[in-house]
Amino acid sequence: MQHLTTWIEEKLLQVNLVNTMDQAEGFSRLGYTKEEQASQEQFRYIAKDLGLQTYQDAAGNQWALWKVDEAAGWIATGSHLDTVYNGGGYDGAAGVVASLAAVKLLKEQSFQPTKNIAVIAFACEESARFNVSTIGSKAICGLLDKDKLASLEDSSGITLKKAFTNCDLDWELLHEARLEDHQLEQFVELHIEQAKKLEKSKRDIGIVQAIAQPTRLRITSVGKTNHTGTTPMDERQDALVAIAPIISFIEETTVDINQQQNVPLVATVSTIQNSPNAISMIPGEVVLVVDIRSTNAQAKHELVSRINNFALAVQRDRPVVITIQTLVDDEPIQLDASIQAKLTHICEKIGLSSMPLDSGAGHDVMNLAKRWPCGLVFIPCRDGVSHNPSEHADSEDLLKGTRVLAEYLRETAGNDYSSLE
Amino acid sequence: MQHLTTWIEEKLLQVNLVNTMDQAEGFSRLGYTKEEQASQEQFRYIAKDLGLQTYQDAAGNQWALWKVDEAAGWIATGSHLDTVYNGGGYDGAAGVVASLAAVKLLKEQSFQPTKNIAVIAFACEESARFNVSTIGSKAICGLLDKDKLASLEDSSGITLKKAFTNCDLDWELLHEARLEDHQLEQFVELHIEQAKKLEKSKRDIGIVQAIAQPTRLRITSVGKTNHTGTTPMDERQDALVAIAPIISFIEETTVDINQQQNVPLVATVSTIQNSPNAISMIPGEVVLVVDIRSTNAQAKHELVSRINNFALAVQRDRPVVITIQTLVDDEPIQLDASIQAKLTHICEKIGLSSMPLDSGAGHDVMNLAKRWPCGLVFIPCRDGVSHNPSEHADSEDLLKGTRVLAEYLRETAGNDYSSLE
Repeated sequence: MQHLTTWIEEKLLQVNLVNTMDQAEGFSRLGYTKEEQASQEQFRYIAKDLGLQTYQDAAGNQWALWKVDEAAGWIATGSHLDTVYNGGGYDGAAGVVASLAAVKLLKEQSFQPTKNIAVIAFACEESARFNVSTIGSKAICGLLDKDKLASLEDSSGITLKKAFTNCDLDWELLHEARLEDHQLEQFVELHIEQAKKLEKSKRDIGIVQAIAQPTRLRITSVGKTNHTGTTPMDERQDALVAIAPIISFIEETTVDINQQQNVPLVATVSTIQNSPNAISMIPGEVVLVVDIRSTNAQAKHELVSRINNFALAVQRDRPVVITIQTLVDDEPIQLDASIQAKLTHICEKIGLSSMPLDSGAGHDVMNLAKRWPCGLVFIPCRDGVSHNPSEHADSEDLLKGTRVLAEYLRETAGNDYSSLE
Repeated sequence: MQHLTTWIEEKLLQVNLVNTMDQAEGFSRLGYTKEEQASQEQFRYIAKDLGLQTYQDAAGNQWALWKVDEAAGWIATGSHLDTVYNGGGYDGAAGVVASLAAVKLLKEQSFQPTKNIAVIAFACEESARFNVSTIGSKAICGLLDKDKLASLEDSSGITLKKAFTNCDLDWELLHEARLEDHQLEQFVELHIEQAKKLEKSKRDIGIVQAIAQPTRLRITSVGKTNHTGTTPMDERQDALVAIAPIISFIEETTVDINQQQNVPLVATVSTIQNSPNAISMIPGEVVLVVDIRSTNAQAKHELVSRINNFALAVQRDRPVVITIQTLVDDEPIQLDASIQAKLTHICEKIGLSSMPLDSGAGHDVMNLAKRWPCGLVFIPCRDGVSHNPSEHADSEDLLKGTRVLAEYLRETAGNDYSSLE
């Protein structure tokens, strides 16, 4: 299948709008920008070349349709085309190109679907621009609060509503992107793993069981600012000194829960704002944001409870006020067990090794999984690196993923579907 | 002396350019701005009303001269008129007004000096605008590197050289502000304490023995950023988790040195820069600045040595690289012992209680003390609060400080100088 590998490599360059994937600054193709639109345009060109009908919905998602019967159900695959700032060209694009390549493979093999097949390139999956992720897939699932989101601003002060207008989309028609239950039967996404488990285990394919969802805390320490030179140590209300042990505690406790309970739990103090942050001033207020993820909701809640207790102890010892606000507390998403079984079976059938995995990051599929049976296929990426110019996935692995998607579509949207159940 | 108290209150309002000292936003009169110039203009009006000659030197310092004999030495007092952003109206202004009030008192008592007396309002004492403090007093001491400082920029991108031009000063003539040794005999500054020791001890006057100077470290922790959701705890190179114990260690060790050795030592992690500081990204680089102050150089060096050892231990335990750079390492300034004795004697003589103190903050006098015998007098300020709109000193305490300065000038610049030695 050398020609398909070459085709995948070409189309990956095409949707990334480059001549080589080696880009020192990576890719900055944020959601609802001209850059994302340019990539979507290439998606439509490729889809049309494959004989697919193309369509943009009211949320800016791109649809490539292999329609065989208006009355039949839809089987869909896909991912997204936007990136973070200085991100990689595989996160999202790999899944879109592999989905198109799967259709190409099926067409070359003269496959005749009995159900309709769709490849979707979701809009604005990354939270990099508006601090809200998976806007396109949330829209088709009816999970967006239109009034609340309209005024969200990017770092240049452009609102999400205005960004829609700039992309010739009408914010007031956003609700039209929502699909009815009967419009979709199943959805499977392919994505790079963004971790090292496949690479370390030397497996070809990861079959995702569950997607971790973030619980996010904002921890605020309020003391009192004063002159660093004139305030004795025993008269200070240093907000940073008070909160520093909480940073250490969160890491130690997370490692402890991992080891004691053997559950996958990660927690990160990812942002810190120190005020006044001036060389001669004692910190008067410090705000941390903690990002906690697990496919095990209980593990997340145990960590939060232990953080709360520790913060109370800090507040007893120090002349500061510590408050903890829950910003987000999303339940983990469980993916469809029968689709996992089918994907595992397919890997065996076509001679690929696979392993069950959990996803630490969110993906468009997590929204669709709330309404339809869904699956998520991971392929390896080098050193697990993602959201980084050095992000890389091998063409061979893209081809393997393509073959899994093609076989999934063959079995699910074709006549031999029932034979494999 | 009710009339002098009233005069002090009036002149304090006048140099602060307000009708009441209660200003919710405090005072923002930065060095080499129109606001500082407006205050300097009021200084000149007051000085002329007192019969003093006024003069601006090449660094923008304001001089008010009581000249009696061209050949005689100069005895000077004074402080500064600039403030930090949203600062108080006493830090600096109190010393300038008290110096003028001391002259007024001496004139009312028909004192005839045998030496020349000067009141100086130094320009740009605060580092708030250009991150360099005491520019005016450094200039008269010849401590400025003109070439290095010219291109220093404020937060609006205005260079120090340009700020000079905006104040009708010529940067190229800055060196002319430098005094020859013989031009000054002694200098005494009056300042609010900016700490609580006088208030707690219920003493009227602090006689400063030494001025702490900062040692400043920049501590950098370099790990590797990665996705918070997909990177297991044991594969992280989290720069913030690595550096957090250093924040705690610095505070604990400083308290320990204070207790063990009974030396006044303060240390503050005052600024922190976290990168990329994004909610889904593990911190890849964190930079702390540590401000360490003591009048005991050995105590500062012991702390720095213990921080270095601890950082090495952290680096052995964690997959990060920690580097420590010394930004500043200034020796403490010792003030003149005979002037301290004289000031102590004066307090006794005029019925004020006094106590020896150290200064945790820097003041203009620290520059002059490198070349001439100098003294520093503290008066209490409410709750030790400074660099804050709620900064306050009582008129009674300003009057007490004025009386000390007047007596100092009488004894030092008059005929009865020798009688008190």
